[in-house]
Amino acid sequence: MRRELDLLDALRLLIGGPVVLVTARWRDQEDVTPVIWVTPVSRRPPLVGLAVHPSRHLHDIIRYAEEFALNIPGPDLLNHTHYFGSVSGRDVAKLEISRLPTFKGHQVDAPLIEHCIAWIECGLEDALRLGDHTFFVGRVVAVQAEREAFEETWLVGERQYRPLHYLGADWYGVLGERLRAQLRTDEEGGIILEEPGKDEEEEEKER
Amino acid sequence: MRRELDLLDALRLLIGGPVVLVTARWRDQEDVTPVIWVTPVSRRPPLVGLAVHPSRHLHDIIRYAEEFALNIPGPDLLNHTHYFGSVSGRDVAKLEISRLPTFKGHQVDAPLIEHCIAWIECGLEDALRLGDHTFFVGRVVAVQAEREAFEETWLVGERQYRPLHYLGADWYGVLGERLRAQLRTDEEGGIILEEPGKDEEEEEKER
Repeated sequence: MRRELDLLDALRLLIGGPVVLVTARWRDQEDVTPVIWVTPVSRRPPLVGLAVHPSRHLHDIIRYAEEFALNIPGPDLLNHTHYFGSVSGRDVAKLEISRLPTFKGHQVDAPLIEHCIAWIECGLEDALRLGDHTFFVGRVVAVQAEREAFEETWLVGERQYRPLHYLGADWYGVLGERLRAQLRTDEEGGIILEEPGKDEEEEEKER
Repeated sequence: MRRELDLLDALRLLIGGPVVLVTARWRDQEDVTPVIWVTPVSRRPPLVGLAVHPSRHLHDIIRYAEEFALNIPGPDLLNHTHYFGSVSGRDVAKLEISRLPTFKGHQVDAPLIEHCIAWIECGLEDALRLGDHTFFVGRVVAVQAEREAFEETWLVGERQYRPLHYLGADWYGVLGERLRAQLRTDEEGGIILEEPGKDEEEEEKER
């Protein structure tokens, strides 16, 4: 079940590095393209940045629409995600062909994709040329996520509610475990940090 | 065993969204801080961008040094990574306290951290103010990775050679599986995309 999140949660949805399906709509044109080069860039205000090549159809639509949405897919959308990256919205109506249902966002006109596990709506703040790509800076205006997927952080619970990561070529990854860091102090309050590669026997004792 | 990689491999090392330990050295000062807001931004030339808050010690050192290194840790450095993010280099000599050995980079003066699994050396190209953070744009000048960790993409093989991802608070994640996308076509060459939530029975048949 989807629920509304705080705007700042957008930053945590993105930090683990999931692939995002960027949707945008301008007049009668819409596009969906996976974008991998995405990161939060500011907390106050909450801003995200994404690098898009100027040759992409998505590039023009974001320019004109001045808004976009980030849809975060889980592993169920592996092949859809790859497909959206392998054809151009100039040639085919990708969303239509995919037959994935969409729903209306709260703040932007870009379609939000059902079966994704989190959604971030953004208004375009800035577009900078960095090298051969355009770096679009978006201001977060609405955030939703599946309850089973995210609660303060990604929960890494049931597999279908874990975000999909892109590794390159036709390879993707899914998080397999969630680890909690611990900072331990010695009797004098100093930090105890284990050196990697230490005695396995010793590590065994600590468990 | 470490080996040299192509400069463009830096972009693939970063796309899955691993946490990076950023090191920089200026005169007698050095710092190491985990940075989560990192992304490639250009292919030609290969550029990466990272957002760092101006209050950070690391911020000043990168400004002065005009170069830095990204060290990608695996799960063995979970507690080290968290520690590096919880104290300021203004107060303590983090690298020294950690007792992690370092080695010399090929192109930059920033120390590279042993026990990490990949290393990207960068020269500073630009520093942009985006919201409340500075977005440092670095040009990739040298790349290395452990042979067991990366070969064209992250291999997601032996656990110690998988990159660490940050999820928020004191939670981290590690990739658990590597999936290969497949685009299947029907007899007429159309794309076959399964709709999520389709008949389980039908899916069963395909396995």
